[in-house]
Amino acid sequence: PRICRDCQELTDVERAIETVISQFHCYAVKGQKEYLTPNEMQDLVVQKLPHLGKCVGPLEEKIECMGDPNEAKLEFGEYWDMMGDANRSPPSPSPAPGSG
Amino acid sequence: PRICRDCQELTDVERAIETVISQFHCYAVKGQKEYLTPNEMQDLVVQKLPHLGKCVGPLEEKIECMGDPNEAKLEFGEYWDMMGDANRSPPSPSPAPGSG
Repeated sequence: PRICRDCQELTDVERAIETVISQFHCYAVKGQKEYLTPNEMQDLVVQKLPHLGKCVGPLEEKIECMGDPNEAKLEFGEYWDMMGDANRSPPSPSPAPGSG
Repeated sequence: PRICRDCQELTDVERAIETVISQFHCYAVKGQKEYLTPNEMQDLVVQKLPHLGKCVGPLEEKIECMGDPNEAKLEFGEYWDMMGDANRSPPSPSPAPGSG
């Protein structure tokens, strides 16, 4: 996390941002905290962003867009943008509420 | 927050993202959750992002870049990008520690 560490008392929002950043770092093993491989990204989305992932659209598509799975890198900025996009896009129409 | 609400159990990262989003909505009073005015943005950064704000660089500059304070709008995507940039940029060199 890049938030200045010498300032101890982070606000709730700052702690939230740190959480988002630290997850990226946790999963970015091969890239040494610099980037996610497609597999790492998939793990992160499936395990940590299951609900948000649905708003981004098909994960497979995203991963294919990244290109060669052995070469592709998702850098922090792209990860951040991806989440921003998920929250920016209009909510998908929900199915008619079922019975109950 | 745009994260699908019918899915109850959000992960820690998803809750963190919700926190970041909800703060934007809290401060985006004039813009009815759609955008921040320069004053609202300043309040948010000063009150909620004091440490991160330092990494973004001078707040006054950012606000001036927004243009006419009565017309300028910071939309959610720009808010999100601003935080991403703050975390992407290399930490600024800290001044020599003072005495004490």
